[in-house]
Amino acid sequence: MVQIAVMGYGVVGSGVVEVLTQHAESIAKRAKEEIRIKKILDLREFPESPFTAQFTKSFDEILEDPEIRVVVEAMGGLHPALEYTRQCLEAGKSVVTSNKELVAEKGAELLALAQGKNVNYLFEASVGGGIPIIRPISQCLAANEVIGIAGILNGTTNFILTKMIRDHMGFEDALALAQKLGYAERNPAADIEGEDACRKICILASLAFGKHVYPRQVHTEGITDITKEDVEYADSWGGVIKLIAEVKKLGNGQLQLLVSPMFLSRESQLATVDDVFNGILVRGDATGDVMFYGKGAGKLPTASAVVADVIDCVKHFKARKYLFWEDGSPDYVQDFLRNPASMYVRAKDESGGGLKKADALFGGVTPLARPGAEPAEFAFVTPKQEEGALQQKLETLEAQGVSVLSRVRIGDFS
Amino acid sequence: MVQIAVMGYGVVGSGVVEVLTQHAESIAKRAKEEIRIKKILDLREFPESPFTAQFTKSFDEILEDPEIRVVVEAMGGLHPALEYTRQCLEAGKSVVTSNKELVAEKGAELLALAQGKNVNYLFEASVGGGIPIIRPISQCLAANEVIGIAGILNGTTNFILTKMIRDHMGFEDALALAQKLGYAERNPAADIEGEDACRKICILASLAFGKHVYPRQVHTEGITDITKEDVEYADSWGGVIKLIAEVKKLGNGQLQLLVSPMFLSRESQLATVDDVFNGILVRGDATGDVMFYGKGAGKLPTASAVVADVIDCVKHFKARKYLFWEDGSPDYVQDFLRNPASMYVRAKDESGGGLKKADALFGGVTPLARPGAEPAEFAFVTPKQEEGALQQKLETLEAQGVSVLSRVRIGDFS
Repeated sequence: MVQIAVMGYGVVGSGVVEVLTQHAESIAKRAKEEIRIKKILDLREFPESPFTAQFTKSFDEILEDPEIRVVVEAMGGLHPALEYTRQCLEAGKSVVTSNKELVAEKGAELLALAQGKNVNYLFEASVGGGIPIIRPISQCLAANEVIGIAGILNGTTNFILTKMIRDHMGFEDALALAQKLGYAERNPAADIEGEDACRKICILASLAFGKHVYPRQVHTEGITDITKEDVEYADSWGGVIKLIAEVKKLGNGQLQLLVSPMFLSRESQLATVDDVFNGILVRGDATGDVMFYGKGAGKLPTASAVVADVIDCVKHFKARKYLFWEDGSPDYVQDFLRNPASMYVRAKDESGGGLKKADALFGGVTPLARPGAEPAEFAFVTPKQEEGALQQKLETLEAQGVSVLSRVRIGDFS
Repeated sequence: MVQIAVMGYGVVGSGVVEVLTQHAESIAKRAKEEIRIKKILDLREFPESPFTAQFTKSFDEILEDPEIRVVVEAMGGLHPALEYTRQCLEAGKSVVTSNKELVAEKGAELLALAQGKNVNYLFEASVGGGIPIIRPISQCLAANEVIGIAGILNGTTNFILTKMIRDHMGFEDALALAQKLGYAERNPAADIEGEDACRKICILASLAFGKHVYPRQVHTEGITDITKEDVEYADSWGGVIKLIAEVKKLGNGQLQLLVSPMFLSRESQLATVDDVFNGILVRGDATGDVMFYGKGAGKLPTASAVVADVIDCVKHFKARKYLFWEDGSPDYVQDFLRNPASMYVRAKDESGGGLKKADALFGGVTPLARPGAEPAEFAFVTPKQEEGALQQKLETLEAQGVSVLSRVRIGDFS
């Protein structure tokens, strides 16, 4: 019998307790050990819970209990999750987490600590909820060089964009609906501004390429500026708008990363990932494109991923699972302004000559049309060029009397 | 340093040698051991190969070499692959295979043998080529009860159907093209008659539900009877025809299995899996639907899956990976005639009253139309009922002067 503790009894933590309890028998069979929850850490009171005896408000009770060998950190946020995780690892306990913020910021440090203590630090649930992705990347693709990863990693924004595309809703209405249905938080900033997707692509990139990528190194744009008009132009272009987080390995050893809304062709596998679903495309030199698809969030999917990690810890007390990446460096990610990109631009020019100006500036653009556009409105897709050049040309265009209303990158991953 | 042998130097075997050689450094890092190929078994001569020194025609040289601890079986077919695998396992060597025929027929026996000898028998490459699926089902979904699996598991037939759907080709032309492009073998029977997909769903079902399902227990239909007209009716119904292999767990502990072409709604994630790609949808009680997508065959994808298993063997000489299912039983799979199904039927009745007859017999049918149909042709979708009842009613319909031209089940998995 193995005893564990769960820190944080929110959505994920209570889900973990539920899965461990309801599937106790089959889990014991798979782990070859009964797994028993000895302590649950939460500052709140849960008098109705069948686990009242296990609740504690004192982290030290967990830390100092030598019988607790695996700790689930489902607290979220950086502090005190970081300090608690450090202390658990230092005390020789394996830690399993769903905390993407912590892994994205401190993964290298915590993995090194775990390695030094010969215990596990596992985080399958931090990306893609119940979709297995950390393990497949680290194990199944072991005989493969990963070339790049592109994914729809945030279900909230994907739900909002799906509503904008299918039901022609505006951004604000779609967000309100997502909040009403419980898909978006009251403060949705981390989702709609791309921060959540950024943390997840940092974790995937760190794992796939062996060196930590920090969120601050990744240029991140959210979906707050996407309008119904942009969705219509994407449709006339032959695709849809999705929030894509992507990483590519460059020939010089640097990585190119970006989190941004993108036009995706309807033929792209990621274009068919709708609603709250996530899709993660991993491109390997031997496997080609492999895609993983499923619900990227939710209590039970996420909890089942955490529990799978707990089972792995229990099965591998002797032979530690190999999961590791080294610390990052400031020059590891290519300067964003050097990323090549092609861009859709929607603009207004009361003089009517906007498209000609753009064509001259960008060296040939592809015009797009939409029904019902005002006469002064126009839109086009630029040829591929460096982000720095694109920005400069858009500024020049504005100086020539054109108002740029919106712009969305063209996805070129698949 | 760990020494291994490769049996069979065909597409997969030579791919394994290629991947192990080209990625030697990163593989050594991941396996924490250098992996060296000591012997390659093949009856043919490869005088041009850089591995001439390693080639042998004698299985005993491998069996009796105590330095060889892992053997890759890439021979295919039941014999002598079965005998060689048995002997290797009995000699305490781990075996990795891509041989779906052998795993589908003898998996339970070989897994028990491996367990008894405390070695590994791994077969990630037997289903889905380079798509990780065996490991995710056995590990990541460990905290989850699998409810069912549905997949497009054969790339050849999916390519043929895609050509029939997109380019309006007939079955024979599409097959000839697949053969020309190397996607279909000269003798394509195992693919187009559904046998290959059947073996794969047997492996997935055995793994997910813990008890061996034998190919002979699974009702299997291929795509040889699918016509252009059926593709058109599927289109007017709102979907496409795909060859689906599926398993569902029933309340009484039995499994319901089927390999058959099916109408899939365009909204279904599997409907967008085109060309030679495979897609495997795993439905879990906690995770919901998770889909795995990628190239299901090909030299390098399959080889990289084999090599990932080899790495796993090397990393787990001490702590054996848990992969096991018990032997099957004759009553484990529900009698096919009891499966509930709804069916599209295309038929001819020169009297013109065919649809009325069908409507009366089946208790209400949904008629379908296609442009250019002869006046005597008609088509409909039946309500869901047991296969046995469906068959009887179709016979009655024929007795009433209707010629049934084709029939395709309606997919109801998602």
